[in-house]
Amino acid sequence: MSVANDLPSIESRIVTMVRDYCTIPSIDHLSTHLRSVLDVVANQAVASSEGGKRLRALLALTMYDCMSANGTTSVNCDRRSAMMDLACAIEVFQTAALVHDDIIDDSDLRRGHPSAHRALTSAMHSNAEGAGLGIMLGDLLATASIAIAGNAAQQLPHTAQINQVFTTTQHDVEIGQILDVATETIPLTDPEALAHASLEVFRWKTASYTTIAPIQLGLLACDIDPHRAREYALAIGQPLGIAFQLADDLLDVIGSSAATGKPIGGDIREGKRTVLLADLLARANNEQRRTIVRIFTADHRTDEDVHTIIDLYRESWAIDASIARIRTLWNDSVAAMTTLGLDDANLHRLRTVCSRFVPKVLVTAES
Amino acid sequence: MSVANDLPSIESRIVTMVRDYCTIPSIDHLSTHLRSVLDVVANQAVASSEGGKRLRALLALTMYDCMSANGTTSVNCDRRSAMMDLACAIEVFQTAALVHDDIIDDSDLRRGHPSAHRALTSAMHSNAEGAGLGIMLGDLLATASIAIAGNAAQQLPHTAQINQVFTTTQHDVEIGQILDVATETIPLTDPEALAHASLEVFRWKTASYTTIAPIQLGLLACDIDPHRAREYALAIGQPLGIAFQLADDLLDVIGSSAATGKPIGGDIREGKRTVLLADLLARANNEQRRTIVRIFTADHRTDEDVHTIIDLYRESWAIDASIARIRTLWNDSVAAMTTLGLDDANLHRLRTVCSRFVPKVLVTAES
Repeated sequence: MSVANDLPSIESRIVTMVRDYCTIPSIDHLSTHLRSVLDVVANQAVASSEGGKRLRALLALTMYDCMSANGTTSVNCDRRSAMMDLACAIEVFQTAALVHDDIIDDSDLRRGHPSAHRALTSAMHSNAEGAGLGIMLGDLLATASIAIAGNAAQQLPHTAQINQVFTTTQHDVEIGQILDVATETIPLTDPEALAHASLEVFRWKTASYTTIAPIQLGLLACDIDPHRAREYALAIGQPLGIAFQLADDLLDVIGSSAATGKPIGGDIREGKRTVLLADLLARANNEQRRTIVRIFTADHRTDEDVHTIIDLYRESWAIDASIARIRTLWNDSVAAMTTLGLDDANLHRLRTVCSRFVPKVLVTAES
Repeated sequence: MSVANDLPSIESRIVTMVRDYCTIPSIDHLSTHLRSVLDVVANQAVASSEGGKRLRALLALTMYDCMSANGTTSVNCDRRSAMMDLACAIEVFQTAALVHDDIIDDSDLRRGHPSAHRALTSAMHSNAEGAGLGIMLGDLLATASIAIAGNAAQQLPHTAQINQVFTTTQHDVEIGQILDVATETIPLTDPEALAHASLEVFRWKTASYTTIAPIQLGLLACDIDPHRAREYALAIGQPLGIAFQLADDLLDVIGSSAATGKPIGGDIREGKRTVLLADLLARANNEQRRTIVRIFTADHRTDEDVHTIIDLYRESWAIDASIARIRTLWNDSVAAMTTLGLDDANLHRLRTVCSRFVPKVLVTAES
């Protein structure tokens, strides 16, 4: 089965499972008024779940397919269906995390649409109720992801380990979010500390659930030994996940709004501390550094501020440094993939899916 | 083992498990700056976990002890230790829910101390960072509760069902929180709809995790058939949980700040829609109703407003109506307890723990 065939199934499974989980059965008596508010939240749960690239689900499924096809396990339709649900559970968890992330960052947009708490604020005509329901929607989706993963794990080998990996992944992302808030308080006078802290955050907040967990869960579902599954997942997934986040930050500066679904320079407008910013500061002259610090320590950033910073990036060494970092990490990840013992066709298939995590131009066949 | 002996063990297990879960090992390299922020959050996780009455953990443990002692299972120390952790997991989940609840309600105090997001705001010298870290702390504690319950379930019979009940309970509480926000938008001109909606919310938001889940988990850990465990839990736990919430609302009006750890009239100050308020409105005269509606639809309520409402309650039928409701529910719960087939000593023991959920004066031995 190819990746293109899986996408519509992933999409429809997610919508079905999310709606089921956020709706209560009609036999449960509920007044019209309460049910109408619950419908608003359930509809938003579905809306917030739509439009993702499904990279995490595709990685988990591909890992499972490649290792199964490679002869370690026999093909089993029930098991693949459970693996599909497990892959979808990762996506549902991502939506949960993004809903809370957007409240924490006070973001207006997500995937080109109003963020969940903004949409709920409009629907309820109240800021307080919108934010309150947004927090609850994130909680409900996180619980949904655990329930979906738990049901799927019942049909898969290493049931207990799969549940544990899923919970540990949520823990790691939550620790990462806390470290992310902490990073925002690092003084801009210490670019080295900033670069170092940002890279640490990437591992906890991004690589954990974006690449490490999908690989590990796909391998466990193939009945690979849990210890080996963890080692493979770290060796392949950690560099790939960090490269993914570096590329995401880079696209905020050199990408297009159409490609990312977010306005360009959004991270700059938020005043976000990134590795890219640390690289910019590290080689800025005194005048440039003063400009950067002034803009990033202000309460708000104007359109003009955003353009000033983008211009500084374009003439700086920071973009090349980021590209070099991404290339090195990609090569580390590819090297680790070769240790899985896959045949050429399956190795190519895995590598192709992994290449979706980083911009094409950086990871050509020769890289 | 008596309830009094269990309390210190519950307290120390919770603190140990929560601190472990919110701290990352020192072998994980982390800069001093990031670690200091993580320490702030871990300390708050412990602070927010302290000071609960542990009613839910005691109910779960007592249910387990009574049914084990009754001869359905042999005494097993490993199993009781796992049951202790499962009981603590319910308490950890409660703390998670309260952390988010206090953000949603913008509450200053919890158990007589600053609420988590307020304390984090002080520690970080920033409202935005305090609220952001508060959301994450709630997420982290919810994940911790799932992880603790999952580990415990591995040592207990009905592992899969225990995990499922734990996740379903979180789902029900989250649905209940959403319905609670919805209740706040019910017009005060329809007291009957308000009373009805509030009682529905109590079932989802309170009874689910306060009484139904502790009973169900205690029974599953005793290897009781899952279907029967659910039936018992609903028959005993649903009326008890609703009585508990009615009593909690009543204490806000007639209790003392020292007993509740919250300022008296806190619900009134928040403008909270309760069954008690519905009862007050149902028999108020036109002038009283205008006063109540004016006060409850204002943006804020002053000390004078709170006293006006408390005075109206004191001369109203609402308090008697609430006491009558609580008595009826308590009697229903006690009747269901007798169907468990416990001997007299164990039935008395269970009933004694259950009576902690409602004010003593309402549930004398003769009631």
